[in-house]
Amino acid sequence: RVDGTRLVSRLMALAAIGATPEGGCRRLALTDEDRQGRDWLVAEMTALGLAVKIDAIGNIVGILKGREEGPAVILGSHIDTVGTGGRYDGALGVVAGVEVLATLRDAGLVPKRDLAVIAFTNEEGARFHPDMLGSYVWAGGMSVEAAHAEQDSDGAVLGTELRRIGYEGPERPGFLPAHAYLELHIEQGPVLENEGGGLGAVTGIQAICWLELTLKGRPSHAGTTPMAYRKDPGLAAARINLYANDLTRAIPGQLANSGVIRVQPANVNVVPETVVMTLDLRNPDDARLAQAEAAVRSYCAALAARDGIEIAFRDLARFPATPFTESLIATVEESAAELGLPIRRMISGAGHDAQMMSRICPTAMVFIPSIGGLSHNPAEFSTEYDIAAGANVLLNAAWRVANA
Amino acid sequence: RVDGTRLVSRLMALAAIGATPEGGCRRLALTDEDRQGRDWLVAEMTALGLAVKIDAIGNIVGILKGREEGPAVILGSHIDTVGTGGRYDGALGVVAGVEVLATLRDAGLVPKRDLAVIAFTNEEGARFHPDMLGSYVWAGGMSVEAAHAEQDSDGAVLGTELRRIGYEGPERPGFLPAHAYLELHIEQGPVLENEGGGLGAVTGIQAICWLELTLKGRPSHAGTTPMAYRKDPGLAAARINLYANDLTRAIPGQLANSGVIRVQPANVNVVPETVVMTLDLRNPDDARLAQAEAAVRSYCAALAARDGIEIAFRDLARFPATPFTESLIATVEESAAELGLPIRRMISGAGHDAQMMSRICPTAMVFIPSIGGLSHNPAEFSTEYDIAAGANVLLNAAWRVANA
Ligand SMILES: NC(=O)NCCC(=O)O
Ligand SMILES: NC(=O)NCCC(=O)O
Repeated sequence: RVDGTRLVSRLMALAAIGATPEGGCRRLALTDEDRQGRDWLVAEMTALGLAVKIDAIGNIVGILKGREEGPAVILGSHIDTVGTGGRYDGALGVVAGVEVLATLRDAGLVPKRDLAVIAFTNEEGARFHPDMLGSYVWAGGMSVEAAHAEQDSDGAVLGTELRRIGYEGPERPGFLPAHAYLELHIEQGPVLENEGGGLGAVTGIQAICWLELTLKGRPSHAGTTPMAYRKDPGLAAARINLYANDLTRAIPGQLANSGVIRVQPANVNVVPETVVMTLDLRNPDDARLAQAEAAVRSYCAALAARDGIEIAFRDLARFPATPFTESLIATVEESAAELGLPIRRMISGAGHDAQMMSRICPTAMVFIPSIGGLSHNPAEFSTEYDIAAGANVLLNAAWRVANA
Repeated sequence: RVDGTRLVSRLMALAAIGATPEGGCRRLALTDEDRQGRDWLVAEMTALGLAVKIDAIGNIVGILKGREEGPAVILGSHIDTVGTGGRYDGALGVVAGVEVLATLRDAGLVPKRDLAVIAFTNEEGARFHPDMLGSYVWAGGMSVEAAHAEQDSDGAVLGTELRRIGYEGPERPGFLPAHAYLELHIEQGPVLENEGGGLGAVTGIQAICWLELTLKGRPSHAGTTPMAYRKDPGLAAARINLYANDLTRAIPGQLANSGVIRVQPANVNVVPETVVMTLDLRNPDDARLAQAEAAVRSYCAALAARDGIEIAFRDLARFPATPFTESLIATVEESAAELGLPIRRMISGAGHDAQMMSRICPTAMVFIPSIGGLSHNPAEFSTEYDIAAGANVLLNAAWRVANA
């Protein structure tokens, strides 16, 4: 069994890096706070006696050698956060992975296969796109060069930032062959809590489509320009946001969010010239997500024609619905049952590094409840009981897979 | 008669300071570009032999002494621009004032009263609020201390910026008693052009209300939070923008613009926590503007209650409809008629320094056509013919009033 108190105190030590006054955490990828978080993690892994390796996209890998040569069982998640992040999203999976290896070491247990913990770079997609970037590169979905060329909204280049914080490592992403991947994560939604608690055996991840829209109108004077003469991309952005919201009622399972809206020139008395906005569209069903995206695009085309606005689209991320591996989902369920812990199957609303890892190896995830369903919010919280329960299921499942 | 070619070449010399690739001008108040524009203006005034004085809010005053002691006839406008500014808005009135004094000096004519040209600080309200700030302080509507304490959206303090660019002068705003105020300006709208050209004798300025709304919701995860659980201030902002737009069809004469929309934390996959947006509401009729503002406020109250959003209001500017002085409007008309120039009475859609000066002295304005009605746009344009015509009316009217 893991040491729940030690696990939570490690989590809180990491949460202190980038802590916000509201009680949350702001540790955006490849910032100084991320560097400090990485330094802390590398020190913890080194103290445990793990072999620590960094790859060319900044993924941090800590390896416990097994009794035999061959592909490793990988546990992982991420330590970057969104702007209004909490203390558990991502950090839990990495710190629990470290705790699993610490528990085995303390017990003097050596698995048959290598066991590794990975902290993947830029999972959140809050600073650089796409989300799950580090695991996407690890799984071969994107080249190191393309990932290095990504820019944040201020024009900072990912590769430059990675070198600046000293985490462009010598290893090739994916250098450690994977036998299986297991990730523990907070649910980030209200489902488990509404079901009265207990754990989640994640069956897969819904499809994700992130679009960036650039709307160009015509700047004009807000006091002298008759309403009929205006070409206002701000009004168009408002209509698109509401239209995408309407789609969530029209298409089963559909979610929509416009998280970014940037207006230029941003003067009170100037009808905007340009608006850049994002849409985060998700659906457990690929076809329904495609239907929602097509509806947004045709709505925008009609709006652009009617209002004399130009609307350009750019893909920021696009990942299909991802089912996990049935045998591994069953292993997670059996691991919980053996410990007498209630667990139910569920789909994940959020994207996770597991979604990328499932491209290259059998993959499954364990969820623990999020109080109030809150995440990407400073008030994000999970109990020590649930954290220890989730970590014990991770330990049990990892031990089974690593010795099978 | 003024020298139209000299006047336009002076305008273009000023337009070169802060020139943008699109052919416009970006000379936001109290930036380095504004400082360069001010330095250029002071040099022009000094070369003309004017007494140049700077007051505590940075208004620049050039004085041509008359034959008698007493209040001055003041010509003026501003040289700051909005972010997507053109080459004529404001600059025309200041440079034409300089040209009027240069023409009198060249002709060896000395008026009975002092004649002065003023460039007022921060007329646009693009960087600091309220708009017309320099003339508002000059006219005693706002204290120097309150004006110095204003902050831009990055938190830069007006007084600090004024000292940084070296334009906190020793004079008390309003130090020069005013006999009358005359301002030449581009129309910034399509009315004169639609009437087949000709000049405008401005009868007054419509009422202005600038509101800043801060909307607070609850940040949450865009992939895991069911739509019904979200408290999205971005959606609320979209609804308010469209509601204000609807009011322009419901209330006669009503205009509305949402020029600023700032979203926090601005991550693709985070339902926004906070949105700051502005509304620029105008109406020639004070009662109708009050009706529009009340409608917006009650719409917001209902929306806040329904969607669980907090909405806080802050006044950025609030100026009543301002009629100009009948006798001076007639002087402008007679001055045009004497020169054989067609002129028609009209109300101004934009706020102007004249609106503030009319609090302390007889005031009138002359408008020239804006091609395509464009302003606050790099393509803002007026012909040399109209510029010279407007400046000649200004010269004629100023001469009449200065000798009456
Ligand atoms: N788990 C998580 O918050 N991942 C970020 C990617 C997403 O938006 O789903
Ligand atoms: N003339 C002008 O653009 N003034 C700025 C104030 C306003 O928005 O009306």
